[in-house]
Amino acid sequence: MIFCRKMPNVVMTAHPSNGGTVTQVDSIHHLPSPPHPPTVDGASESGHHTEVVKERTPQGGEWLLSGIICINILMLGCALVSSSAFNVVAITPVHRQIFLITLLVLTMLWMLFYMVVTSRKDHAVLFKDRHAGPVWLKAGLVLFGLLSFLMDIFKIATYVGYLHCDSPVKVAYPVVQAVFLFFQTYFLWFHSRDCVQLHTNLTRCGLTLTLSTNLVVWMAAVTEESIHQTEITHLNISVSHKLYRANYGAKMCTCSHMACETFKEAFYYLYPFNIEYSLFASAMTYIMWKNVGRIVEHHKHYKFNFYVKDVFVGPVAGLLLVVAGLVTFVLYKINILKEDKEKRNKALLIHFIMNIVIVSLMSLSTMIGCIIYRLDRREYVSDKNPTRSLDVGLLVASSLGQFIISYFSLVATVAMGAQGYLNVLNLAWAVVMVVEIGLQNYFIIEGLHREPINVMQANARAFQDHTEMANDVEGQISRFSISKKPSWKRRVLREVCAFLLLANIILWIMPAFGARPQFDHSAEIYFYNYTMWNAIVNIGLPFGIFYRMHAVASLFEVYLRD
Amino acid sequence: MIFCRKMPNVVMTAHPSNGGTVTQVDSIHHLPSPPHPPTVDGASESGHHTEVVKERTPQGGEWLLSGIICINILMLGCALVSSSAFNVVAITPVHRQIFLITLLVLTMLWMLFYMVVTSRKDHAVLFKDRHAGPVWLKAGLVLFGLLSFLMDIFKIATYVGYLHCDSPVKVAYPVVQAVFLFFQTYFLWFHSRDCVQLHTNLTRCGLTLTLSTNLVVWMAAVTEESIHQTEITHLNISVSHKLYRANYGAKMCTCSHMACETFKEAFYYLYPFNIEYSLFASAMTYIMWKNVGRIVEHHKHYKFNFYVKDVFVGPVAGLLLVVAGLVTFVLYKINILKEDKEKRNKALLIHFIMNIVIVSLMSLSTMIGCIIYRLDRREYVSDKNPTRSLDVGLLVASSLGQFIISYFSLVATVAMGAQGYLNVLNLAWAVVMVVEIGLQNYFIIEGLHREPINVMQANARAFQDHTEMANDVEGQISRFSISKKPSWKRRVLREVCAFLLLANIILWIMPAFGARPQFDHSAEIYFYNYTMWNAIVNIGLPFGIFYRMHAVASLFEVYLRD
Repeated sequence: MIFCRKMPNVVMTAHPSNGGTVTQVDSIHHLPSPPHPPTVDGASESGHHTEVVKERTPQGGEWLLSGIICINILMLGCALVSSSAFNVVAITPVHRQIFLITLLVLTMLWMLFYMVVTSRKDHAVLFKDRHAGPVWLKAGLVLFGLLSFLMDIFKIATYVGYLHCDSPVKVAYPVVQAVFLFFQTYFLWFHSRDCVQLHTNLTRCGLTLTLSTNLVVWMAAVTEESIHQTEITHLNISVSHKLYRANYGAKMCTCSHMACETFKEAFYYLYPFNIEYSLFASAMTYIMWKNVGRIVEHHKHYKFNFYVKDVFVGPVAGLLLVVAGLVTFVLYKINILKEDKEKRNKALLIHFIMNIVIVSLMSLSTMIGCIIYRLDRREYVSDKNPTRSLDVGLLVASSLGQFIISYFSLVATVAMGAQGYLNVLNLAWAVVMVVEIGLQNYFIIEGLHREPINVMQANARAFQDHTEMANDVEGQISRFSISKKPSWKRRVLREVCAFLLLANIILWIMPAFGARPQFDHSAEIYFYNYTMWNAIVNIGLPFGIFYRMHAVASLFEVYLRD
Repeated sequence: MIFCRKMPNVVMTAHPSNGGTVTQVDSIHHLPSPPHPPTVDGASESGHHTEVVKERTPQGGEWLLSGIICINILMLGCALVSSSAFNVVAITPVHRQIFLITLLVLTMLWMLFYMVVTSRKDHAVLFKDRHAGPVWLKAGLVLFGLLSFLMDIFKIATYVGYLHCDSPVKVAYPVVQAVFLFFQTYFLWFHSRDCVQLHTNLTRCGLTLTLSTNLVVWMAAVTEESIHQTEITHLNISVSHKLYRANYGAKMCTCSHMACETFKEAFYYLYPFNIEYSLFASAMTYIMWKNVGRIVEHHKHYKFNFYVKDVFVGPVAGLLLVVAGLVTFVLYKINILKEDKEKRNKALLIHFIMNIVIVSLMSLSTMIGCIIYRLDRREYVSDKNPTRSLDVGLLVASSLGQFIISYFSLVATVAMGAQGYLNVLNLAWAVVMVVEIGLQNYFIIEGLHREPINVMQANARAFQDHTEMANDVEGQISRFSISKKPSWKRRVLREVCAFLLLANIILWIMPAFGARPQFDHSAEIYFYNYTMWNAIVNIGLPFGIFYRMHAVASLFEVYLRD
């Protein structure tokens, strides 16, 4: 491996001043806009050509070393996490935590190097990708980072009490992780838009190290959470959770201080946020990795107007839904912890009905939006935009999380005959959810690929200024209503977007802040075994939450475009 | 969903005759080659532009519907297969098989429609992707298809004997699958290179239907095989396999004819081929899906010369390795079924040593190849080639299968202290395998992205003809040895390629034809539980086999390029 490591350190000489060729390379994706006519002067520039090409195509093995590193860490991590879950005798959680500490420390060292050395050099970061690191990702990162930090504090407090009879690694790991949280959040906050041009190989490897560290942390957290929940459920499913959370862990080694059990209960509640944090950090790191060595053309930035005066029904209906959702969510959280089974079932009933109402209304409005798309045909944007492709990929991939939960619910409920109103509601929820996510994905992706209305206006005006076109082109333009006042179609689209946006927010809040009907309603737990259903929900739900946040951000963009 | 379905049926008018703009759009990726200087004539052609762009960018939702279909079938299939594995009471294998029969019939109907209607129309298939459906994929498809067909025959023969007391669906499924095998193999043999331009939406949906059907069949086969092997191992690990294969399944319903048990034993041996067949078909269908609506430029096809007279050491060493491997493989297969534990351990010992020798020699020669790459710097090819990207993606993805098996072995052996010579050898094998695959991936990908030597010669001559270049360019050209006789570097590269190619063949043959040291050596079975290790091997190994075949094909291409 050592022999292959030294890649030719391609010297990057992409000053904005030799824009002639750089712009040429990048503007080829924008055929419809004629401002930069490509000029190829044959052999006179051919020496220069090769240089440009070298900068454009880092395919041949430049990303390869970093990819190999990533795969190896991930596979080793996967094997270690699985074996610490399945064979607790030979590989204890301590072994896994030592591995994780090593990864975290290495990642921090690289981040330090990057922030102190690489990013300060001249020509290191010539371009910033405006699309990378959007505000919702950054805000989510900080929010989940803070809650993960809290989790680490609780963990430290808990395991300090076990220091006299348990490994000190159990204290060391949350300490290192807490430091890492600060480091990484700082790093991603300030550098997530960098298109690094210097030390590209080292940076790529560092970024894949960061990526795989986050994914291994994610795997470990998902596994720990699943095992914890399986243990609770396994012991006795009918007795209240509280009692078992208190008893669990007190087998052989007793805690030396009083607050231990409270802390323990608290940090298990915070696990989902840590899982979410790792996902957010992975997504941002992946975008950074894709941007290493990339030359971003400064696109003509169309200013989108954000005005709400024309929309009314959508936001109001959405807000009502959010308020109603919050009320039922609070009721659910209060009643689900009660001992009385009757009350727990009532809480579930309300939660199911509310969710079905929300998701049905969303499906209906998305359908209206799709019909409008059919009526209001528009050009598709033709430029290649890596960030948009990545956005769409992340949207579809994260929706798989909710898909898989819903399909597993669906199969379980149908197979058991859907007896009882709760099972019927559960089934209905699963079906409507699948329909809604399918439609919403279609709506968002279609919306992101349509030519924004103000770009069309600009183009249309350019057409008019340039030459007197034939009548059919005129007709085409007038159809798209250049007038300032938006047509009814655009208004309806905006109403739909605003409504969906708010509905996604409430669908995000409920699972993110602890609604777990998947465990409170025990049909699936009985149907699949404990471990399997826990694994499905613990892997699927964080992606589902990520999906809702991502959908909110994407719907906002669609809103601005229409 | 219905409302969104009708996509605008973009009329494809891409006759080769309007090559002016089509070539322009496609040739933009080939800046270094000056034959087609891009000409943008501003607004005079802009009406035409939009049309070309429309053909180029089917991103905005055209692939979306087919993607949604694919995801839904896959998720439903995944839920059904898992629940039929985990909850045999509510969802029996019969339910799963009815679902599979539905999928298979639907897929066949679409294939029939495609072959009879779509592909016969004018303008339906204007272009063929020369890179798609390479001969090794087709040959593998037919080979594994035949063996899967045999499996289905055995299955039919077995379950006919149970007809009096078991569901007739168990006979119907292999019958339908056997018909499907013929259909699909015929379809992929003749149409895998099509770039379909007509009925694009329907074709996309049909192809994703085919893709997801194959993947669900793959999932079902992997699960069945895992359950079967777990049941065998679970009953009693020390008694010979044969006895248990005979007993298994005879619980409640006895077979009405004598040959039943023989057939049953036979068809379980053939499962891995069916798994492999599904993977091959999936890969080919995916490539076809990517090619729908694609406009392939007729690249200047550089003829690669295949001559072997300059290489000697590589092929001879490789052939020796293949022969030695075959001999030890036969010995292993004979001895591993013996009752005597001593003999079984000896068989394992020989198999492990042989594999370590092969893989170590491969690592060594790959390292030499990598050093030569460092010495013999060359341009990277700059054109975007979707098939090559896909090839590289498939290579890396399929290598994950072997990676994960090796890492799980490694962790298990290290955690158990690697006691006994068999465990030490197993550990060594895992480590060398990881190193070898990493190096080989690097070598192949780097090789595929380097400018082929004869293309360089052609370019160099073009330079010379065009103008008298400055001295530095001359020097650059002479460095790359335009002379007919290949330099020593190229010779060494070819030796390495030839050796690796043959070594990959023997590494393909051994697992493909039934070497399963992962189950014969019981360390990992004890360490992880049965189900888990079975799942890992049954998912990982078919990808590993696919990887070896893919590597052989890729190495052949690298050989021709150097």
